[in-house]
Amino acid sequence: MATNPSWVLKSYPSAMPTVENWTLEDRMVPQANDGELLVKTLWLSVDPYMRGRISPAKNYATGFKLGDLMRGGGIGEVVASESSEFRPGDIVTSDYFGWQPFSVIRAATAKTVATGEAPIQAALSYLGMPGLTAYFALLRTGRPKAGETVLISAASGAVGQIAGQVARIKGFDPVAIAGSDAKLEWCKELGYRTGINHRTSADLIADVAAACPKGVDVFIDNTAGPIHDAAMSNLNTFGRVVVVGTIALADRFDQPDIGLRHLRRTLITRARIEGFLLDDHEAEYQTAIADLLLWHRQGLLQTREDVAEGIETVPHALVRMLKGENFGKQLVKL
Amino acid sequence: MATNPSWVLKSYPSAMPTVENWTLEDRMVPQANDGELLVKTLWLSVDPYMRGRISPAKNYATGFKLGDLMRGGGIGEVVASESSEFRPGDIVTSDYFGWQPFSVIRAATAKTVATGEAPIQAALSYLGMPGLTAYFALLRTGRPKAGETVLISAASGAVGQIAGQVARIKGFDPVAIAGSDAKLEWCKELGYRTGINHRTSADLIADVAAACPKGVDVFIDNTAGPIHDAAMSNLNTFGRVVVVGTIALADRFDQPDIGLRHLRRTLITRARIEGFLLDDHEAEYQTAIADLLLWHRQGLLQTREDVAEGIETVPHALVRMLKGENFGKQLVKL
Repeated sequence: MATNPSWVLKSYPSAMPTVENWTLEDRMVPQANDGELLVKTLWLSVDPYMRGRISPAKNYATGFKLGDLMRGGGIGEVVASESSEFRPGDIVTSDYFGWQPFSVIRAATAKTVATGEAPIQAALSYLGMPGLTAYFALLRTGRPKAGETVLISAASGAVGQIAGQVARIKGFDPVAIAGSDAKLEWCKELGYRTGINHRTSADLIADVAAACPKGVDVFIDNTAGPIHDAAMSNLNTFGRVVVVGTIALADRFDQPDIGLRHLRRTLITRARIEGFLLDDHEAEYQTAIADLLLWHRQGLLQTREDVAEGIETVPHALVRMLKGENFGKQLVKL
Repeated sequence: MATNPSWVLKSYPSAMPTVENWTLEDRMVPQANDGELLVKTLWLSVDPYMRGRISPAKNYATGFKLGDLMRGGGIGEVVASESSEFRPGDIVTSDYFGWQPFSVIRAATAKTVATGEAPIQAALSYLGMPGLTAYFALLRTGRPKAGETVLISAASGAVGQIAGQVARIKGFDPVAIAGSDAKLEWCKELGYRTGINHRTSADLIADVAAACPKGVDVFIDNTAGPIHDAAMSNLNTFGRVVVVGTIALADRFDQPDIGLRHLRRTLITRARIEGFLLDDHEAEYQTAIADLLLWHRQGLLQTREDVAEGIETVPHALVRMLKGENFGKQLVKL
């Protein structure tokens, strides 16, 4: 029987994770029991939320314990099915793929990936969690009005790239914050009106003010940290802040986040600051996917992937994404 | 002509205001011009928002400049009217009474005070700005559901005392945070289920957890500061935080507010944190006043005033309210 090199969590990172926090164990290919599927992994997704799952702190998702097999979003081909819903050869996606070439997943977590219309890995990108997050965070929680300024952090990332383009398609005024000039250049190709490089900015508050001369109406916050402060300092009356991610805290996840508090500003602007979790919008997924597919088909939606190859690269891909070294949606191809 | 001792702002406080920040000037009784009323002041209101108006920082209301006559909520009798809307003898309220025995106000800012149903000073308390703030902050912005736990800071204050009772009347589960055991005792008489003395608590987070065993669903935040942190740490999924006031910052108003940031918690709980300004609810004032009057008439709504007497006491009354030394709605009777 083939061996199945599998990534398990070895230690909790106290700061920014390193590849040494995981170890590659040589496991056996597992067997599917009743209600399960054995899948051959084709793609794995690494996403910012995983930082929270390798922390002993309490989060919405139960975290990994030391010694646990790492799991996350993936796409694979069904090899053996103990479910009447799927058969061998089906291409499926699930949020619970192991970081391993062969994985057993519960059939209840799996969905068939439509083939033909888009490359299958789109199910991990603009037709999956990041694209849906961008769609609902912007349109349902942020709720911009026509012409309003929408500031988006991590603007070229998996969520940001879609949020910026949906904002442009819907007639809002998207402004990017990203970590390199190359990313900003691409953001402008996507339709962001302008952008700010937060790594080279000497005064982020002033630079956001200059980029958003009418102030910030909606802020899609993928980062927290100083970028959050710059947005809050430029927030308009009745501004909306959608807290989608906190990747700027990836290096100090289990420490108290001490910094500027914005309660005076919240009071004076009557801002609405709201945390976002995609699961809350499940009833509308099909509407969103139909919109995103249509826009893609019409050439209105570009996407960019950053692809690592081989099972041995998964922790490295996660770490570089947490550091912002990726350019586009970070994936691993097996 | 009678003299008219008037309080003017002498200096901006850098920390907690002191009575030395104002000076009592002997002015002449002013004259009403077209569209104005000369009123004899009967009651003045001191309110937490005034701390923001004696700061050089930018706020929603334009602040006072050094040398400006202080103005705020008041009730008075019209002495001379240059408006067809009012006549001498009318009892009126306005947010722009000078801190002086005789004041000229614009008729457009004045409203007639209904006499008979309630003592006239109720227009500065439960039938005025604080009562309406409590009503709308709780019911329109907080939007609790039946049985939900509503945590209220400054719970016996002008806003808190009404918010707690409306919460009880509407079938929510109100919990008080206040600054003395006497205040908490009275909060329980009002119908708060239980309460926490934040001045004697050794562990505010744990004490809020003990007082709110099902967690905090809605937090009416009249204070900011460490009380805010204790509430956030106990906030339930889909919790709502209404930022009504920031009186805990009164002693450090022009300095950056550095402290715990709650973006991870906001994300994980999908909390909604929203700034509140009463003006946004003007279209519904009459509905709210009718409800508050009815509840008062039915004996469901108690109120408590803390009354200073004489024009010379106004700054002192403001400072003691900012320090939390008042017990109930702080007023000055002339």
